[in-house]
Amino acid sequence: MSTVAAYAAPAAKAPLERTTIERRPVGAFDVLIEIKYAGVCHSDIHQAREGWGEAIFPMVPGHEIAGIVAEVGSGVTSYDVGDRVGVGCFVDSCRECEYCKQGLEQYCVEGNIQTYNALDKNGQPTYGGYSTHIVVDENYVLRIPDSLPLDVAAPLLCAGITTYSPLKHWNVGPGKNVAILGMGGLGHMAVKIAHGLGAEVTVLSQSLRKKDDGLKLGADHYYATSDPKTFEELAGTFDLILSSVSAPLDFGAYLSLLKTDGTLTNVGAPEEPISLNLFSLIGGRKSLAGSLIGGIAETQEMLDFCARHGIGAEIELIRADQVNEAYERVLSSDVRYRFVIDVATI
Amino acid sequence: MSTVAAYAAPAAKAPLERTTIERRPVGAFDVLIEIKYAGVCHSDIHQAREGWGEAIFPMVPGHEIAGIVAEVGSGVTSYDVGDRVGVGCFVDSCRECEYCKQGLEQYCVEGNIQTYNALDKNGQPTYGGYSTHIVVDENYVLRIPDSLPLDVAAPLLCAGITTYSPLKHWNVGPGKNVAILGMGGLGHMAVKIAHGLGAEVTVLSQSLRKKDDGLKLGADHYYATSDPKTFEELAGTFDLILSSVSAPLDFGAYLSLLKTDGTLTNVGAPEEPISLNLFSLIGGRKSLAGSLIGGIAETQEMLDFCARHGIGAEIELIRADQVNEAYERVLSSDVRYRFVIDVATI
Repeated sequence: MSTVAAYAAPAAKAPLERTTIERRPVGAFDVLIEIKYAGVCHSDIHQAREGWGEAIFPMVPGHEIAGIVAEVGSGVTSYDVGDRVGVGCFVDSCRECEYCKQGLEQYCVEGNIQTYNALDKNGQPTYGGYSTHIVVDENYVLRIPDSLPLDVAAPLLCAGITTYSPLKHWNVGPGKNVAILGMGGLGHMAVKIAHGLGAEVTVLSQSLRKKDDGLKLGADHYYATSDPKTFEELAGTFDLILSSVSAPLDFGAYLSLLKTDGTLTNVGAPEEPISLNLFSLIGGRKSLAGSLIGGIAETQEMLDFCARHGIGAEIELIRADQVNEAYERVLSSDVRYRFVIDVATI
Repeated sequence: MSTVAAYAAPAAKAPLERTTIERRPVGAFDVLIEIKYAGVCHSDIHQAREGWGEAIFPMVPGHEIAGIVAEVGSGVTSYDVGDRVGVGCFVDSCRECEYCKQGLEQYCVEGNIQTYNALDKNGQPTYGGYSTHIVVDENYVLRIPDSLPLDVAAPLLCAGITTYSPLKHWNVGPGKNVAILGMGGLGHMAVKIAHGLGAEVTVLSQSLRKKDDGLKLGADHYYATSDPKTFEELAGTFDLILSSVSAPLDFGAYLSLLKTDGTLTNVGAPEEPISLNLFSLIGGRKSLAGSLIGGIAETQEMLDFCARHGIGAEIELIRADQVNEAYERVLSSDVRYRFVIDVATI
């Protein structure tokens, strides 16, 4: 056991504050990571405020982790001290179910072990990336290519893979027409990745406020969804719409923008049920779908892809003591496009 | 023009009665069909009663048509007098859009011309299969293989293709686990076809009332959805669920029966919007989809498939003057499994 500094929420809805936590000893197959940067994901806020149900406190959020290997266990074969590495949304899974065996650990039948706000296989709470060090089994550690700066790489571990995985799954590439719904932390990554994959990319955002950014990040077109003309003009246009929006939407209207056989897939979602007329799926053999982060092998593939294409997140680097203020700014959509904590300030 | 006998609804919600209608002269590319049998589809009732919006009266319903070629135009190359043929849900389409060119005429951008309750390219109303003869462009006529009796073949032109098309589209075959939701006119065809395709087939029906029939038609398993244990036992089981149900359902519960990457596709749908929590799609990368009949080439493929596998509809043959009574029985689910009008009785 070793005591390390962290930022934690002591209780639901309480502000995060500096504290210390215990990390487990480095086991035979473990990697000790000195964390350099931790991204601030909207879901950190949901969980720290118990928006998704009962949570474990104190809570150290953070599942967009980038750092340097500080120590390896005797059985570790993939990493050495000094390697540049990352950790994403989960740190273990059953490793035996049909999904784990296919590299789809995100859909583990037993439920994978989340990087924080979960219990590990020994029943101990997991603590996330808002801390100076973390101990993770090497099978759940990712390699960050040398050409990717660690600060802009951190958000790839959640926002990157969450958008890369569905874009790949639904075959986005040259000749495909894809719309990204929402220009936030996830959306701006989706624009970069879809562009990197060679697709024609349209941003659908409430307003044109971020249009210049969108075009700079790789979008070919940018439309305001507050303008009814958008829906007339773009009817039947897209092979895929990726929605990163968690506000309620008129799904019938968005489905009308798909071609026959098109899919509207959701990586964000409102907590409340949506209303949908099924005829908007039947006429055009359309699909409404969802996707959850990505598996370990695919996350590595995404990092390598991003390195080849020079893709990192657009970030605003903050000190650890700014995290509570950052949460408020995330909630009011006042971030372009991801806060990243400089862990040296913890 | 020629005058032929028909059963028509003179006005919305009025009972159908015997009348005569005019059929267009047989053009160069037309086939005149002497209709032998016409299936009674639930959608006939919706339309005859203006349940789907304003309709054209008098209305001669019927888009499950089987008969014999009585005359062919000078330019017709595919059919000869005496051929056994069928007509399905549409009798023309734009022929030029990307979907028509791909054999997906059911998704024609211009909207295809429905077999009845529509206007043809000359602005004349179309009349369906509850009549002794119909004139159809040869490109929208299907060949009914010799081994398929015409009476049990008629319902294949709608109920058959409506279920065959999604089963093929979502790759149902050996090794796939498929559930058919609902055991009515569409559902019973889906069971036969999914079994013929080599899948493991489970019927999900409100009660076990039709269990013996379901197993006889090719289902491997049969569960009552009124029993909550069904949902526990079958969680995470299916690659595909095909719903032929038009009543509102708890879609979250049905989505929980899918494996990761599974699809729940709808060929029936409630008229009212459904309520859906998108997290039931996200956790498991699932899809909620829809499918509409099928294209001409695929309908021919389906007829040939059904002939090879000895698949016809389970029918109850009725006289034309029983059609109003049959409508009431369809509405109370009192039919096993499709009424077919013996057109000789018109």
